[in-house]
Amino acid sequence: MNNAPLAVFDSGLGGLSVVRHLRQILPGEDIVYFGDTARVPYGIKSRPTVAQFALETASFLLQFDPKLIVAACNTASALALDHLIRELPVPVIGVVEPGARAAVRLAAGKPVAVIGTEATISSSAYVKAIRALAPEQPVIGLACPLFVPLVEEGRGSDDPLVKLAAETYLAPLRAQGVHVVVLGCTHYPLLRDAVAACLGPGVQIVDSGRETSLAVQRHLTETAALSAAAPPGTIRCYVSDNPTRFQRVGSRFLNEPIEYVELVEAERYVNLPRRPSEVR
Amino acid sequence: MNNAPLAVFDSGLGGLSVVRHLRQILPGEDIVYFGDTARVPYGIKSRPTVAQFALETASFLLQFDPKLIVAACNTASALALDHLIRELPVPVIGVVEPGARAAVRLAAGKPVAVIGTEATISSSAYVKAIRALAPEQPVIGLACPLFVPLVEEGRGSDDPLVKLAAETYLAPLRAQGVHVVVLGCTHYPLLRDAVAACLGPGVQIVDSGRETSLAVQRHLTETAALSAAAPPGTIRCYVSDNPTRFQRVGSRFLNEPIEYVELVEAERYVNLPRRPSEVR
Repeated sequence: MNNAPLAVFDSGLGGLSVVRHLRQILPGEDIVYFGDTARVPYGIKSRPTVAQFALETASFLLQFDPKLIVAACNTASALALDHLIRELPVPVIGVVEPGARAAVRLAAGKPVAVIGTEATISSSAYVKAIRALAPEQPVIGLACPLFVPLVEEGRGSDDPLVKLAAETYLAPLRAQGVHVVVLGCTHYPLLRDAVAACLGPGVQIVDSGRETSLAVQRHLTETAALSAAAPPGTIRCYVSDNPTRFQRVGSRFLNEPIEYVELVEAERYVNLPRRPSEVR
Repeated sequence: MNNAPLAVFDSGLGGLSVVRHLRQILPGEDIVYFGDTARVPYGIKSRPTVAQFALETASFLLQFDPKLIVAACNTASALALDHLIRELPVPVIGVVEPGARAAVRLAAGKPVAVIGTEATISSSAYVKAIRALAPEQPVIGLACPLFVPLVEEGRGSDDPLVKLAAETYLAPLRAQGVHVVVLGCTHYPLLRDAVAACLGPGVQIVDSGRETSLAVQRHLTETAALSAAAPPGTIRCYVSDNPTRFQRVGSRFLNEPIEYVELVEAERYVNLPRRPSEVR
């Protein structure tokens, strides 16, 4: 048993859609979350910048002595997971590998599509993770850059702009006989119904956040590190900008009110001195 | 005569739509540009964060001994111009006041609408600037958050998603008898035709970037600080991330190829020691 908290970080508030599943699957765990809302989004930025930002954001959470860090950001997981695993002194679980694993299992050899940000798709991280598990698996990566701003603006699956964007991006997937779609961005579960409506009932949808929460559960079980505390666990959120907006928009992702949000000034997480092993 | 360069900064590449007008109106001037592409966008962030980022970005340009700094970012101009004027040792011109002045002149008392980012509109900076010039002027502020990602994705005025977004945001302005619309974001000139088509031929459109370039011309003329060099002046661009993407997407804003782009690491502009007068 280990009552230390789970640490979760994201470029902004999207990672709360992963926390939502962690809360359902592991209701007794305490969670500390850091959203880098001052520098959001990561999805249009380069690998070195995303690696630097993700390491700074994750490192901030070390002060809470977490038993595990979840990189609840597809872009950070896709571009920088190796860097984070190498640099951080606790286990790190990203969202790409669990999503890839579920996709391979459900596809049974039929075509898979992964949708995500520009940076996630350009990195080919999902394609590589899927091929590592099933070298012959057909897989298509597709960037859907408007989905994040559509969700951030509060638009849902019934919104005409969401429907047209989904049709514009996803129509080619129908022609390609896609059998499984991976929601490779933490914002996309909020548009799940629009994606499903566009692709039809024969297509299965993988939510990487849910699969990651199951992977966290397996890790904690195997290492005998589940919390012994009675549910519900606590959630403390930290953000680098705009706690009010985080609270308002983020509660839609978490599906419960966000009680505790604290603003973190740049001096507390940017450009902190690093251990000598840090190579950047 | 003063052959020192004009310094121009923006949260990313949008400010190049202002540089495009500077090049037309002041073809002999050398220009140094810094786009904070590592932390873009500013338009969804808070006033203290935008003020800090804008000051760091503008301060980087001081090493080139500019005769003037242009805050070619509506969000930075709206939220932080006073802060920049107070902290920087050279004159600073923002894009809000010139745009407001043109709107008042063209409106002749009829309703004006200002469209911009969430942060620019929430700040009411345009409304205040317009009311300072014409206290009775009717003015409406309207955020159009999807316009920036639509342009960044390469979509233009003929794109069905752009047309639907324009109709969704702007239809209410038709009912309100708006006479003048201010493009209060440096990305919006690239959607000018869609805005015009939606509002009809009776509505005049103000491009704050063009008005700002005219204000820069007036300032340089009045202070006898125009360059004596023969056109064309040089353009050097600096970015905090992703120079390749900047070059590719930015040339659409500048309307000419971008020859010189240099990547600036965080150590060269973030959290630098400041003069004692710096209060944040």
